[in-house]
Amino acid sequence: MNGAESLVKTLLACGVDTCFANPGTSEMHFVAALDRIPGMRCVLGMFEGVVTGAADGYARMAGKPAATLLHCGPGLANGLANLHNARRAQTPIVNIIGDQATYHRPFDAPLTADTEGWARPVSVWTRTATHAAAVGAAAAAAVQAACAAPGGVASLILPSDVCWDAGGQVAAPLAPIPVPKVSPDAVQQAARVLRSGQPTLLLLTGSALEQASLADAHRIAAATNARLLSTTANARTARGRGRYAVERLPYFGDAARAKLAGIRNIILVGTPAPATFFAYPGKSARPYPEDAVIHVLARPEEDLAEALSRLAAELNAPRVDVPDTEPRNQDVATGTITSQSVARTLSALLPDQAVVVDESVSFGHAFYPGTEHAAPHDWLQITGGAIGDGLPLALGAAVGAPGRRVVALQADGSGMYTPQALWTMAREKLDVTVVVLANRKYAILMHELSSVGANPGKTALDMLDIGNPDLDWVKIANGMGVEAARADNMERFNDLFALANRRPGPFVIELVI
Amino acid sequence: MNGAESLVKTLLACGVDTCFANPGTSEMHFVAALDRIPGMRCVLGMFEGVVTGAADGYARMAGKPAATLLHCGPGLANGLANLHNARRAQTPIVNIIGDQATYHRPFDAPLTADTEGWARPVSVWTRTATHAAAVGAAAAAAVQAACAAPGGVASLILPSDVCWDAGGQVAAPLAPIPVPKVSPDAVQQAARVLRSGQPTLLLLTGSALEQASLADAHRIAAATNARLLSTTANARTARGRGRYAVERLPYFGDAARAKLAGIRNIILVGTPAPATFFAYPGKSARPYPEDAVIHVLARPEEDLAEALSRLAAELNAPRVDVPDTEPRNQDVATGTITSQSVARTLSALLPDQAVVVDESVSFGHAFYPGTEHAAPHDWLQITGGAIGDGLPLALGAAVGAPGRRVVALQADGSGMYTPQALWTMAREKLDVTVVVLANRKYAILMHELSSVGANPGKTALDMLDIGNPDLDWVKIANGMGVEAARADNMERFNDLFALANRRPGPFVIELVI
Repeated sequence: MNGAESLVKTLLACGVDTCFANPGTSEMHFVAALDRIPGMRCVLGMFEGVVTGAADGYARMAGKPAATLLHCGPGLANGLANLHNARRAQTPIVNIIGDQATYHRPFDAPLTADTEGWARPVSVWTRTATHAAAVGAAAAAAVQAACAAPGGVASLILPSDVCWDAGGQVAAPLAPIPVPKVSPDAVQQAARVLRSGQPTLLLLTGSALEQASLADAHRIAAATNARLLSTTANARTARGRGRYAVERLPYFGDAARAKLAGIRNIILVGTPAPATFFAYPGKSARPYPEDAVIHVLARPEEDLAEALSRLAAELNAPRVDVPDTEPRNQDVATGTITSQSVARTLSALLPDQAVVVDESVSFGHAFYPGTEHAAPHDWLQITGGAIGDGLPLALGAAVGAPGRRVVALQADGSGMYTPQALWTMAREKLDVTVVVLANRKYAILMHELSSVGANPGKTALDMLDIGNPDLDWVKIANGMGVEAARADNMERFNDLFALANRRPGPFVIELVI
Repeated sequence: MNGAESLVKTLLACGVDTCFANPGTSEMHFVAALDRIPGMRCVLGMFEGVVTGAADGYARMAGKPAATLLHCGPGLANGLANLHNARRAQTPIVNIIGDQATYHRPFDAPLTADTEGWARPVSVWTRTATHAAAVGAAAAAAVQAACAAPGGVASLILPSDVCWDAGGQVAAPLAPIPVPKVSPDAVQQAARVLRSGQPTLLLLTGSALEQASLADAHRIAAATNARLLSTTANARTARGRGRYAVERLPYFGDAARAKLAGIRNIILVGTPAPATFFAYPGKSARPYPEDAVIHVLARPEEDLAEALSRLAAELNAPRVDVPDTEPRNQDVATGTITSQSVARTLSALLPDQAVVVDESVSFGHAFYPGTEHAAPHDWLQITGGAIGDGLPLALGAAVGAPGRRVVALQADGSGMYTPQALWTMAREKLDVTVVVLANRKYAILMHELSSVGANPGKTALDMLDIGNPDLDWVKIANGMGVEAARADNMERFNDLFALANRRPGPFVIELVI
């Protein structure tokens, strides 16, 4: 058995049975091993950013890591931005990077690069296997590291000789690393703060956004008058009719400050203290009042669900029913295309158990609040601010949640970072409805530029305008084998969205806004 | 004056007047400064790999660096693969990366990443400006570092507060760093080897491929019976009718070994000793005979032209005319589409002073030898093996060489890494003819997989086949505003290629092979 075969067998033994891949010459023995050993679903991406973003979306839905297969340092580099997003989402990924043979590296052949150095900043675990017998054990350790709470990217670098050499040994899965529970002090301190009657915010993210934890959070809030918010960007939020809801902290600092005005305590559940996404001249980086006190109920790597459950018990907080589960706004919107009208149509037509992937950036501000009473669904966001994650996440989510419709709400500027994901959606016949929000500009940057105070001239506007020439997403999608149509009014959008969600396979709607 | 304004003014003072940009929020003050200060041509790319590859292509043709403008660590990450190629091409680039404000970094906001750590492996110079007064001096130092022989990527990281703070100071250009000349010993040693009568190879790259140096190399070869080769991949080679020609060392190890059989000495001019691109089981990494001796005439950072000139003088080598400059194969090819037939049409129809960008990978093996007698042109290659460089290089070359037709010979699989470059070509109305070689597979990997010895099965073949679904490059190009047409026979290709080269602006020909 060679190293590559021991890798495939170990991954399968550890429950990793899906591999998003963009292989190159140095990975041919891994490809050959995948061929010989049944059980691994291989999904090809035509660009590494597609591969890594898809691995992120897969694990968010499947609840277990996929493997990637990347080619040398530059192949990894192409996947780094979406690995950065995955790191912020705390997504488990077994990130496999083929590389130059160990003895070939000193020759500094053209593709030689600092693979480890590039991998480390996005990884919780990085290792280069140095001989075939070490590959199986390294793979098992990678799976264990990726799955250790709260989850992360484990990067395993495989020189080609380590793959083709004989002596591979299959490793048994390693026991999961136990999730630490929070200390009694943390629970009691949070309880004291909540009992004080001072205005207090419970700020949630990660697994605290699962329904069981949100139920506990709502118990705590109802019993103590605390406010509940999730962080601005979250990996996955279960929501919709009949489910506990949670509002998000706004993206822009001014809106976040308005939302948190008067708050005296912030209790963190799996998140650091909030900070604005960017700094702005003369404005605080902290969107909460200066005299607010930060308390930590649970750090990201601790057991968030158990902490909330213990805190609710400590407070003797009674169970709270989900408020009014009656559907609202059941009718689609007509008239002008606005964020609100699109949200209303989404709310009316979202299929039951849909998976929404939201990279709608500026135009989508009404989508999340406007779909609170839609059919039950999961809401996935781009977590690290590195745009170009939406289409790959949608692709991966569709692989990770078969039988559920994926709805990608995709800004056009961001979508152009990784349009190749459409091709893989067509190839794998994935049930994805992509709504491209075509405003033909980097609208969020127009906003940011105006906040700089300048009266923008032609040079600046040209750098934020992607309407010269207009992109034609119908042609781009068709060019990659995906059916598509354009909507420039709500009636047409309503029809197309209903149609797209009913038919098997991917469909792109270019919504001209 | 704020830091951003001092940056723009310093760059202009240093002769950097072109900026390939993909800005984000943290770069808005730089964008505003570009607006206020005339003189910088800003070219927008919708993906950072387009931006960095274009900066590479620009400098290869313009002979001076462009600036990039990238957004934070993840924006840099998207541009790393083509910066890797630029590093291997020894291309001067002033690589500007906006980033979080200095005081905002400790908050670890979502986009915060190890920007310096990612930049360093591709850069000859990396610096983070820490206050506004330091920006101008840092920009001047970056230009100097990028241009120091043999050229490289200078990465300047600009936290947003350093851009918006007052106190910016324009810096004067720094004197170019002198190019070291080779030692007399190096010249005499090379002359001794050449006079020995042993089979000797002169291996050239970089500026040694300019015509004046090639003339000296041909003098040396004619006087001593030495053989001449360039390395497998070179940033720019001047060639065509009436010019000194040079053959390249083959890519594949077996072919390279056959080519170098019997060679006893290799004299290096600006290149390390040759090694195969990848290692293969049981095969040597060195494509030359074990008893061959390596001699260094000039290291990459030394003055290659001066070294060749002195060596020719030392040998009293008489001037050699360019052999037979009569055009051959003046007729286009008809019949079956093969690498040779496409090369023949290229040779017949290549416009005078064309710039050829070659990312043709497997299908293009006959292109370079087959165009030796085409009209005078420059030949640009992907130098670092990180595919997805061709379209961006072509875009940048067109900006850097106005008035000359750029012909991009582009493999389809590689082209899908950075198709967004087509949109910028349309936006800037650049005279680029893109020939997409649509074989609908990763053909080179098919070859590599077969060399692994496996009889590939469905899993493996699926990972190397991009024909399910077929890409439609006409639609993809049209979707980005570029005219396009398909050719599936030579007659049609001949017509389209002639047509495309005559009309202004970009044109894509999908050649189904």
